[in-house]
Amino acid sequence: MRITPIRCLGARLAVLRIWVINPNTTESMTTAIGRCARAVAGPGTEITAVTSPIGPPSIESHYDEAMSVPGLLQAIEQGEHSGADGYVIACFGDPGLDAARELARGPVIGIAEAAMHTASHLGRGFSVVTTLARTTGRAAELAERYGMDRFCLGVHACEIPVLDLETDSRARAIVTDACRTAIKVDRSDSIVLGCAGMADICHSISEEIGVPVVDGVSAATVLVQSLVTLGLRTAKHGEYASPPKK
Amino acid sequence: MRITPIRCLGARLAVLRIWVINPNTTESMTTAIGRCARAVAGPGTEITAVTSPIGPPSIESHYDEAMSVPGLLQAIEQGEHSGADGYVIACFGDPGLDAARELARGPVIGIAEAAMHTASHLGRGFSVVTTLARTTGRAAELAERYGMDRFCLGVHACEIPVLDLETDSRARAIVTDACRTAIKVDRSDSIVLGCAGMADICHSISEEIGVPVVDGVSAATVLVQSLVTLGLRTAKHGEYASPPKK
Amino acid sequence: MRITPIRCLGARLAVLRIWVINPNTTESMTTAIGRCARAVAGPGTEITAVTSPIGPPSIESHYDEAMSVPGLLQAIEQGEHSGADGYVIACFGDPGLDAARELARGPVIGIAEAAMHTASHLGRGFSVVTTLARTTGRAAELAERYGMDRFCLGVHACEIPVLDLETDSRARAIVTDACRTAIKVDRSDSIVLGCAGMADICHSISEEIGVPVVDGVSAATVLVQSLVTLGLRTAKHGEYASPPKK
Amino acid sequence: MRITPIRCLGARLAVLRIWVINPNTTESMTTAIGRCARAVAGPGTEITAVTSPIGPPSIESHYDEAMSVPGLLQAIEQGEHSGADGYVIACFGDPGLDAARELARGPVIGIAEAAMHTASHLGRGFSVVTTLARTTGRAAELAERYGMDRFCLGVHACEIPVLDLETDSRARAIVTDACRTAIKVDRSDSIVLGCAGMADICHSISEEIGVPVVDGVSAATVLVQSLVTLGLRTAKHGEYASPPKK
Amino acid sequence: MRITPIRCLGARLAVLRIWVINPNTTESMTTAIGRCARAVAGPGTEITAVTSPIGPPSIESHYDEAMSVPGLLQAIEQGEHSGADGYVIACFGDPGLDAARELARGPVIGIAEAAMHTASHLGRGFSVVTTLARTTGRAAELAERYGMDRFCLGVHACEIPVLDLETDSRARAIVTDACRTAIKVDRSDSIVLGCAGMADICHSISEEIGVPVVDGVSAATVLVQSLVTLGLRTAKHGEYASPPKK
Amino acid sequence: MRITPIRCLGARLAVLRIWVINPNTTESMTTAIGRCARAVAGPGTEITAVTSPIGPPSIESHYDEAMSVPGLLQAIEQGEHSGADGYVIACFGDPGLDAARELARGPVIGIAEAAMHTASHLGRGFSVVTTLARTTGRAAELAERYGMDRFCLGVHACEIPVLDLETDSRARAIVTDACRTAIKVDRSDSIVLGCAGMADICHSISEEIGVPVVDGVSAATVLVQSLVTLGLRTAKHGEYASPPKK
Repeated sequence: MRITPIRCLGARLAVLRIWVINPNTTESMTTAIGRCARAVAGPGTEITAVTSPIGPPSIESHYDEAMSVPGLLQAIEQGEHSGADGYVIACFGDPGLDAARELARGPVIGIAEAAMHTASHLGRGFSVVTTLARTTGRAAELAERYGMDRFCLGVHACEIPVLDLETDSRARAIVTDACRTAIKVDRSDSIVLGCAGMADICHSISEEIGVPVVDGVSAATVLVQSLVTLGLRTAKHGEYASPPKK
Repeated sequence: MRITPIRCLGARLAVLRIWVINPNTTESMTTAIGRCARAVAGPGTEITAVTSPIGPPSIESHYDEAMSVPGLLQAIEQGEHSGADGYVIACFGDPGLDAARELARGPVIGIAEAAMHTASHLGRGFSVVTTLARTTGRAAELAERYGMDRFCLGVHACEIPVLDLETDSRARAIVTDACRTAIKVDRSDSIVLGCAGMADICHSISEEIGVPVVDGVSAATVLVQSLVTLGLRTAKHGEYASPPKK
Repeated sequence: MRITPIRCLGARLAVLRIWVINPNTTESMTTAIGRCARAVAGPGTEITAVTSPIGPPSIESHYDEAMSVPGLLQAIEQGEHSGADGYVIACFGDPGLDAARELARGPVIGIAEAAMHTASHLGRGFSVVTTLARTTGRAAELAERYGMDRFCLGVHACEIPVLDLETDSRARAIVTDACRTAIKVDRSDSIVLGCAGMADICHSISEEIGVPVVDGVSAATVLVQSLVTLGLRTAKHGEYASPPKK
Repeated sequence: MRITPIRCLGARLAVLRIWVINPNTTESMTTAIGRCARAVAGPGTEITAVTSPIGPPSIESHYDEAMSVPGLLQAIEQGEHSGADGYVIACFGDPGLDAARELARGPVIGIAEAAMHTASHLGRGFSVVTTLARTTGRAAELAERYGMDRFCLGVHACEIPVLDLETDSRARAIVTDACRTAIKVDRSDSIVLGCAGMADICHSISEEIGVPVVDGVSAATVLVQSLVTLGLRTAKHGEYASPPKK
Repeated sequence: MRITPIRCLGARLAVLRIWVINPNTTESMTTAIGRCARAVAGPGTEITAVTSPIGPPSIESHYDEAMSVPGLLQAIEQGEHSGADGYVIACFGDPGLDAARELARGPVIGIAEAAMHTASHLGRGFSVVTTLARTTGRAAELAERYGMDRFCLGVHACEIPVLDLETDSRARAIVTDACRTAIKVDRSDSIVLGCAGMADICHSISEEIGVPVVDGVSAATVLVQSLVTLGLRTAKHGEYASPPKK
Repeated sequence: MRITPIRCLGARLAVLRIWVINPNTTESMTTAIGRCARAVAGPGTEITAVTSPIGPPSIESHYDEAMSVPGLLQAIEQGEHSGADGYVIACFGDPGLDAARELARGPVIGIAEAAMHTASHLGRGFSVVTTLARTTGRAAELAERYGMDRFCLGVHACEIPVLDLETDSRARAIVTDACRTAIKVDRSDSIVLGCAGMADICHSISEEIGVPVVDGVSAATVLVQSLVTLGLRTAKHGEYASPPKK
């Protein structure tokens, strides 16, 4: 066989700084999110997990989402002063993404964006399993925005409030059941978890139901890392130029 | 400001093996492709650049593409025996992607797939700049398949045969001009280069025209690396299960 | 001819209260917006024009838009206390629309939403003429959200900053020219003006170029008035229920 | 709070003439339709309910619809001679809409068009509840034409012939049940009633099931009234110019 | 080479009756249409060219189209009594297609439908070249209805009134020029002629510009012939069942 | 009634040569396919049924499909030397269609393409009933490619391996049941059989369930025959020009 192998070992070593921003104000969630990001970051990547300075303790409505954005943008501005190379917005509604891209020099990625793109590489389609039914419309809207609606075969709610994911011992079982049902009903190939608070239980669900399960926090972390490595960032000559000074 | 930084340095060290397969039989292209993949791979990632064992010297038609697939699939099977963790198909038509996913245990990514997804994170839309006009229909078709048609604002041909990219000294200038025109005509944010043979000139074009330019070979390399790091691979319980034995 | 006329004169008289909220903090714009709303409101309709309590003086970026939302929502809450029957969000980006619908008992309509729907009744398609090129992506996104992308044949920018519409004497001529060009290039039937600041010049443009021109402020005012008259309001049993208390 | 209220009371008084045309020949339906239109018309609006001079007694097939159009167009021509300012086509298939727009100087609105647009302002999506299953395809087609397919989450048939709506005492209960089921199955926010003959029972259904229910006759009446108030009418410089004389 | 040829010669001989209906009342057009249908019909197929009994002399507006339908449906009913096996509606707006399908036992095909489907088999996309600009919207609408909008790359008008096609000696040159331009501007593979009155000049245009040109009359004739041969006709268990008797 | 019949009998007599290529290597399937093609071919049409010279014995995966293409293309080249006027690719995945169109002078049609187009003329929508669930994704993808996704209301699998269709006596009953279920669940008008191996049982299923059932082999045969009769073939000035020589 005429294979011509060219073997080599990458040697990128400069430190790459990623800020993972939790846009709600619950610090225990930030801790968990930071742990997930760190678990997949490459050598040479520094993860800074940040709790939004102002906003709601959890994001479970359009109102919560809207009220979280100014704090998130403040964190982005802080990151710019601190030399961050890229950002993860760690809430599945991807709040403030467009505005954050205007402010940041480096790439900014939402966890819904990253998770959906990632799942699209794993088969014909995915199901989203999320917390409250009232957020499913937003998930479907994001799928469309990212071009992922053709892969998004269903959005399923567990009716677990976000903060109960940390404290309710039955939460993992309920989410796992919802994932199993979703695969069957939607005839989907993989699961996208629709809440940053589910990042911790991603691997155990995948092992239990035997299909790929995607957590947006880790997916977004490696995606930002990849973009920075490629030297790519938000285009700055048009829509996402720095906002006009007022 | 109530920022709660959690600093940490990733320490993933197990070797991760990516095969980058050139589905045409021109070894000088394989060398260039391998160089580009190596330049973005992380420490601990081993790149194996592979020339397809049988097929056409370049892929410039549907016929060439179809004839390249059996050789590509042979290379995938060889990779499975050699313990490859994931694969890049280094031709912008992403030939044989579905079949390769059936054969491989790990993820398989086409360079059009990777480049288009990557560009979608950089702004509202991208333009594809490719070699021959007769391949533009296929590029548009792939954009649709990946859900990237809403970001793909135009496909532009330079009318340079694939192998001339290496030998024709004016090629770089022609491609650069086409990129500049595409940004203006399509009002796009970034460029996707539509041929593996353009990987080498990606950075210089970006510097010259001042907008992000995405090369699929490097984009696919870091994408496969990310998927393997996340423990994700093609779902094997449905459409992409191993093909039935005959 | 077997026509059976049933003639009658409507007699609805209860006062109907519409708050028209300018989400930027420039009061002269509020005054102009209020004048346009009042000009089309029916007898028995009371118009309250409101300037957002906090936010940017004009909305010309995703950042401005995001920063305008908390003030807008504060105004909605004030309206709820004051017995408003419905709301107009008087900025063409329709900022905060989903969150406002969660807060309000009555209908909430954005001016882009109203203008695009209105124009869709006038022919096969419309062109949007707006201020800055960097806002055209957002206009296209809204057209898609409202199902109006099939009618939206083009989005054209005049590169006039929002506040210059009031002060720059050439603004009207520039906008008029852009409208005339848009009709020709897009082969469209009507024009949608893409900024609340253009409400004042709507009629004169229509007369000058001889095609229907739609201003969102007046279109949204009569739309809210119609919904209240029909006894219709945002559905409150699902996605748009009042946000969970924190 | 820096709210700047500008209170004013609209004073539009000129009489505005709307013809509501029933394109079938059953006069009792015309009477009911006229009553619904009158109930929502503003002071100063004169409603003329018109029975089509020729055509079928009810419209329950593509054939019926086609045969109703010449009579409808005759009524439009009569309206033009009588000084009508705008028209409602009071059949949920919106028969003859394009041709009517060519003939009329003022706006012409179909009740499916008005009802679907109206429902789209009330939440993420609506369900249509109609008479016979054989008409559901047409309803879906209209949803697409108006850009409302993204909001139209389902079309449900009651299998009640149109004229039985007036005479069959169980009809209201059957339609109400179908509405309740539709909301649940489609996870929709509101109901669109898919027949002019259902206008009378709109409010009672809404009260009974506790969600917004939209009747097209009243929705179209206020929509035409709004368009006339805004000074807007079908664009006459292109597709909808008066038809060439023969 | 392991080719296994099985040669045979078809022997279908029963007479197959196709009615080709001109929905306008100009008999010279019927004669031309009949000639084109006859030229492609197989041995054993009998073509009956029919002039609509009532309606406009040419169809150049939505109004003309609507007024042509009752006469067309009368012709279909006559065909049913005479034992027709299938029908062609020979006007590019495909007027009355749904209603005709309810009435007829055998298949009914519009010439726009047939021409667009046919052209979709010849390459990536086609351009439509038609008579008056005011009909282009309708052509685009039909392309969408038939799923052919992804192939329809442009609709171009010649501004030649329908009946002038027969009498204006420059018509052929104008149409040919428009075809040549369309291929270049749209980068299309083939041309669809957008008027039954252009059937006669189809072949000469194709020879002159060197690309495939599709005439709907002949395309629809062989399509109906194929459907009857396959034993296929409009499904009669749902939407297209015979219309309810009144 | 002013009907003007022009009766005539077609007299096309030149022999028209269609190659029907079975891209798998099972000759008994070729025999059955040839029989079906011959049953619908017109007098003067010569059918040559061809077994692919190399490839898998049945096509049940993306891998099988990819491996069948070189043999199929070899058969097309042989057909070109033998004077074939057009080709049918007799496998429901339509493998190698684009490449075959580059090689052939005459039209090339896949059986999925033909069957879906054909079914679209019979009502509002069709269901596909196919063999293995793992092929349903491909069927949906083809529906989209051909613009037929708006008509394709569902894809249903019987889980019968392709070659068992010939040998398993229960196969016909299972497929028939699946068709009956599909019509009900999808509310569809007709059935498209999703495998060349089902051609033989098409008519009996249609008779049993009373709805139109479309077999792709016969549909493609008459479609190629029609295209050749019309003098139409793949456009050769762009994407489908002969492939560049290597």
